[in-house]
Amino acid sequence: MAFDQTLEGQLYLGIDGGGSKCRATLYNNKLDVLGTGVAGRANPLFGLEQTFESILASTEMALRDAGLSLNDASLLVAGLGLAGVNVPRLLADVQAWQHPFKTMYVTSDLHTACIGAHQGGDGAVIITGTGSCGYVHVGDESLSLGGHGFALGDKGSGAWLGLRAAEHVLLQLDGFAEPTALTERLFANLGVSDALGIVENLAGRSSSCYATLAREVFAAADEGDKVAVGILREGAAYISEMARKLFTLEPARFSMIGGLAEPLQKWLDADVVARLEPSLAAPETGAVLFAIQQHNKQSAA
Amino acid sequence: MAFDQTLEGQLYLGIDGGGSKCRATLYNNKLDVLGTGVAGRANPLFGLEQTFESILASTEMALRDAGLSLNDASLLVAGLGLAGVNVPRLLADVQAWQHPFKTMYVTSDLHTACIGAHQGGDGAVIITGTGSCGYVHVGDESLSLGGHGFALGDKGSGAWLGLRAAEHVLLQLDGFAEPTALTERLFANLGVSDALGIVENLAGRSSSCYATLAREVFAAADEGDKVAVGILREGAAYISEMARKLFTLEPARFSMIGGLAEPLQKWLDADVVARLEPSLAAPETGAVLFAIQQHNKQSAA
Repeated sequence: MAFDQTLEGQLYLGIDGGGSKCRATLYNNKLDVLGTGVAGRANPLFGLEQTFESILASTEMALRDAGLSLNDASLLVAGLGLAGVNVPRLLADVQAWQHPFKTMYVTSDLHTACIGAHQGGDGAVIITGTGSCGYVHVGDESLSLGGHGFALGDKGSGAWLGLRAAEHVLLQLDGFAEPTALTERLFANLGVSDALGIVENLAGRSSSCYATLAREVFAAADEGDKVAVGILREGAAYISEMARKLFTLEPARFSMIGGLAEPLQKWLDADVVARLEPSLAAPETGAVLFAIQQHNKQSAA
Repeated sequence: MAFDQTLEGQLYLGIDGGGSKCRATLYNNKLDVLGTGVAGRANPLFGLEQTFESILASTEMALRDAGLSLNDASLLVAGLGLAGVNVPRLLADVQAWQHPFKTMYVTSDLHTACIGAHQGGDGAVIITGTGSCGYVHVGDESLSLGGHGFALGDKGSGAWLGLRAAEHVLLQLDGFAEPTALTERLFANLGVSDALGIVENLAGRSSSCYATLAREVFAAADEGDKVAVGILREGAAYISEMARKLFTLEPARFSMIGGLAEPLQKWLDADVVARLEPSLAAPETGAVLFAIQQHNKQSAA
């Protein structure tokens, strides 16, 4: 997609909304960044009102960052990549929103991340941060894998690593599982000294809270802790298998993004790592490229 | 404990509060049931206000059932067995409550369940319903195992069986795991036809919601489904190991209670099943026996 297809003087907003936060970036028609904003989670699966609030809050921040105000939202062509809208009912709910934008185009956060990673071109992407999921888009074909959310799925993600570590430590403290350096690491990380302390800190908490424990799993594994190594191997094996499933559509490019993309790399299979290429642009840029693409389609029609 | 230690004309209230509901039973000093009530969940870990509301709502139902009103709560010696109060901060929170009773004695739901199962005597108990946990009390010694809550622990529980089934089905639908009869069973149970339908029905839901899927695991295993058999074997192995750990305190009696006690039995190890004895009284009765025991101690002091 060529940027000269954008309209002179038009402002664009890219939204990347997920289970832990919502990022908004304001661009001019050359895709220069004019302002950025970040707010709370924007996953319609966990609340439509909160999603809209997070979108508006991050948009307002991005507009102010550029010397504008929320009133100027009516000038914006907005592209929204949101978690959860692969559920048709939730996509319809978001599309029915009385939004403040000039026009609004909505798709999944996976789709916009993939468009961003390959700067508008075809390709495959795996996102491993708080959650985990994969997406590939080649011509008219696409495939989405994983992304079922915590604690149902998201194997190999930060939240999954944290949950598996906490599960093992609680079993170990009751005498059901082998000792692990994760026990002392979780105690120190949470500032507690027994199983009750762990439960009190984690019970009913969000996936983001569990994901903060992932660094302990990587650190313990680096020191040779067998339990941490076992957890990481299981998670990484799933991510490697996911990559190979995405490769069946023969994408020209493959990137991994998210906070765990770098630390997970050494645990992935060599054939997967060999195909890794850098992500070219952020998911918010992908959201804007998606909006421009849709806007041009509609203008041409 | 002899019932003639109770006070002539005194009314007693037994509360069994957990993650899915709160049961209240009103007794006279012969431990005849005068009235019963049930309300929503009463686990301080998930909200103190809700816990107090559920206790009051179930108490009011039990009092009305006996032809009394909530104003008569001031006549009651109340025993409360509550989930979550093994966390010292939460026990203190509950004990600081401006409760409406004549006197109130609080302990864990595990403790009162154990007292009930053995009619006030020493013994061991495993509770497998929505959650799973074990408790043994012999003389001055006691041991509590598991009960760390969904999705941190509670292996072998209804919620754990349901989560494991849903996890496997979602992996299977993405092509990561072997086929299983659980897929069609979960579709039918939830009234959906794809992975998104499962996610939409289960994401962010309570442990009780997951526990409703446990029956599909038992049914599929009965028909020989390998995946269901594997899940049940793993859960049951944990429960059997928990029982043997409780036996180290040499309890005179051992009972299992909760909705899964009966269906799980055929999956448990023979040495554990051989020691199973019927539960003699309900956890609410255990709560009252605890209150009477504490009340007599204080009166004697």
